[in-house]
Amino acid sequence: MSEVKTKAGLAQDAAATLNKLSTEQKNEALLRMADALIAAEADILAANEEDLRRGRENGTAPSMLDRLKLTPERIADIAQGLREVVALPDPVGDELEHIERPNGLRIQKIRVPLGVIGIVYESRPNVTVDAAGLCLKTGNSVVLRGGSAAISSNKTIVEALRKALADTAVPPEALQLIEDTNRASVDEMLKLNGLLDVVIPRGGASLIQNVVQNATVPVIETGAGICHTYIDAGAKAAMAEAIALNAKVQRPSVCNSMETLLVHREFAEAHLAALAESFKSSSVELRGDDRVRKLVPWANAVTEQDFATEYNDYILNVKIVDRLDEALEHIRKYGTKHSECIVTETPEHAERFLQEVDAAAVYHNASTRFTDGFEFGFGAEIGISTQKLHARGPMGLPALTSTKFKIVGSGQIRK
Amino acid sequence: MSEVKTKAGLAQDAAATLNKLSTEQKNEALLRMADALIAAEADILAANEEDLRRGRENGTAPSMLDRLKLTPERIADIAQGLREVVALPDPVGDELEHIERPNGLRIQKIRVPLGVIGIVYESRPNVTVDAAGLCLKTGNSVVLRGGSAAISSNKTIVEALRKALADTAVPPEALQLIEDTNRASVDEMLKLNGLLDVVIPRGGASLIQNVVQNATVPVIETGAGICHTYIDAGAKAAMAEAIALNAKVQRPSVCNSMETLLVHREFAEAHLAALAESFKSSSVELRGDDRVRKLVPWANAVTEQDFATEYNDYILNVKIVDRLDEALEHIRKYGTKHSECIVTETPEHAERFLQEVDAAAVYHNASTRFTDGFEFGFGAEIGISTQKLHARGPMGLPALTSTKFKIVGSGQIRK
Repeated sequence: MSEVKTKAGLAQDAAATLNKLSTEQKNEALLRMADALIAAEADILAANEEDLRRGRENGTAPSMLDRLKLTPERIADIAQGLREVVALPDPVGDELEHIERPNGLRIQKIRVPLGVIGIVYESRPNVTVDAAGLCLKTGNSVVLRGGSAAISSNKTIVEALRKALADTAVPPEALQLIEDTNRASVDEMLKLNGLLDVVIPRGGASLIQNVVQNATVPVIETGAGICHTYIDAGAKAAMAEAIALNAKVQRPSVCNSMETLLVHREFAEAHLAALAESFKSSSVELRGDDRVRKLVPWANAVTEQDFATEYNDYILNVKIVDRLDEALEHIRKYGTKHSECIVTETPEHAERFLQEVDAAAVYHNASTRFTDGFEFGFGAEIGISTQKLHARGPMGLPALTSTKFKIVGSGQIRK
Repeated sequence: MSEVKTKAGLAQDAAATLNKLSTEQKNEALLRMADALIAAEADILAANEEDLRRGRENGTAPSMLDRLKLTPERIADIAQGLREVVALPDPVGDELEHIERPNGLRIQKIRVPLGVIGIVYESRPNVTVDAAGLCLKTGNSVVLRGGSAAISSNKTIVEALRKALADTAVPPEALQLIEDTNRASVDEMLKLNGLLDVVIPRGGASLIQNVVQNATVPVIETGAGICHTYIDAGAKAAMAEAIALNAKVQRPSVCNSMETLLVHREFAEAHLAALAESFKSSSVELRGDDRVRKLVPWANAVTEQDFATEYNDYILNVKIVDRLDEALEHIRKYGTKHSECIVTETPEHAERFLQEVDAAAVYHNASTRFTDGFEFGFGAEIGISTQKLHARGPMGLPALTSTKFKIVGSGQIRK
């Protein structure tokens, strides 16, 4: 049997055990995992150095090497992350509905683990630990398939975590790492109906699209974000500038950063030139249509394709619109239903925007950068769902659960 | 552009309008639809007669013709079904979470429509109306793709419904019927990411498997049920018999009926022979292993394959087990995670069964036949989900919704 199938089977068997554990037993396991990470620091750093050396030899980009790199501080942070998950409430066992039927049946809807979760990701070794912690906390087994760039780090980390689990009620088999980093092992995971209950991709657009296009296992799509900020006529100039700048430059590489700024004609005439200077000072390249370039002559020309591009970089499209409806229409056409913002002092415009824009998170007078499990107060985040089924937006622990109806009777039969 | 893509596009445009409607506006549309069905009775019956004639000519099985057949009473029932949906609470707009962050951000999690729902189904024309009513009530557009057997009925029904919508706030484009009944039109729907937000298959195992295996659009899997009833040692004989018989014969053709009866050795020795006679009187063929056939000599031999078969018929597998764990193990191996029942007077056994069996609905001392949206008191049912994501078990109106985070600030930016 293949590595993927064998390990998924072991994970499924372990899930039956996990399902019976108490919150205390799961928390104890997480604490041991945190300790084990710290204890294995030297081994993990040595393995990480192997990955980095291989990456440098292969000409990997510095930004990728930076994502891959571990330090004693990063390992301590990752271990601390596990301890913080311990402190979060365990959603498993929560009663979501309680129904008493006229025939005497008592029906409870209870949160239960999903079962076995597959995570397909790229080169960040911290995902290995974060995902393991969140899945185990919610009583799920997890099958991890990280990228080849981090395989030495991941093997060493998982070995340490599994050794820690051996002394706990959580079976080490609940945590599986697929060591085969060929594309075929991902493809196999995506078709593992009956063994995997869900696959969650974490990474760039091509990784996510591969999962969405090829999985027969249910998927939670995450990630892609072409986010807009619309500055309405009459918006407060200082607030609008602060929000727009923050949405673009506070961390351009992430999915909730802004890619296109929509500006009402009146605001543009009064403030766009100054706003453009602020972006310029922050090293942002602007791309605009003719109306924009009239006010900001140094801006480059924007193309249709640009509006449909997630730059994740210091590049911003700018478009002038004549009314709210034009902004709504643009967002409807180019948005990816992730995070969208209106800056306005007109309550009816804010209300229409929040109601009519179809996105996981819609903002009035706040930066789109807040779309994040920690910023929402969930205390954790397994990713940001951009689909509408199951979970939408930042996903905390409840997104890793399913439900079950428990029905207690006294001999009822259906007439 | 293809019929499927054109109609899905129109449905998507209409969804933007639907999203803004009040519950009253949607209810008004449903009432008009109900009236229109009654008014179009003669046309619908004539079209249905065409379908039936074609079916008879093609040698369609009588049971299939029965599913297809409409009568004035059935049309009245279907119209009444729409009126009952009017009476149900509209989940759209419900606030599910309200978070006030230390930085002053106010975050609301609100129920919103899914958007555009694709329904792929077989020959029951009532599904056309039921699905349309439930989708529109929850503010969703719907793209219906029924089977060729009912195409004349479906066209006439949808024409009547759309004509009724023309006088309401709900755009007729929100209701689309794919008239191309070639397999290719289903295949096209399954890949319509960006236009369809979800596809729900309703029908037999092969239809559902085709959808699950080929869709890149998110799917809610429904249907397949290999359900078990386990009669524990010390169960009350009369209650056990009533529950087991009901689970098998009250309506054998449906997914929540029982396919395999597991009986503890002690109960079997005392009661299986008599219980078998009751099944025989109800025309049920029994299939058992050697231990069963010692007690019920007329039972046929059961095969491994039988345990993995959803008969939906008057056939029942019987197996004797020595302990609860053996029953749990059997259910784990052969169950489809739909509905599972234990009949017992031992509270610890009931508790273990309800906790450890991984299924959408787990029963203690009640028939598995209750797994149904109406029996659960939901007032409606779009299907029974057998997957763990988004919805599990009977799906009422909330299963046809997603959520959206609305965030209101006063200029907050992320540090």
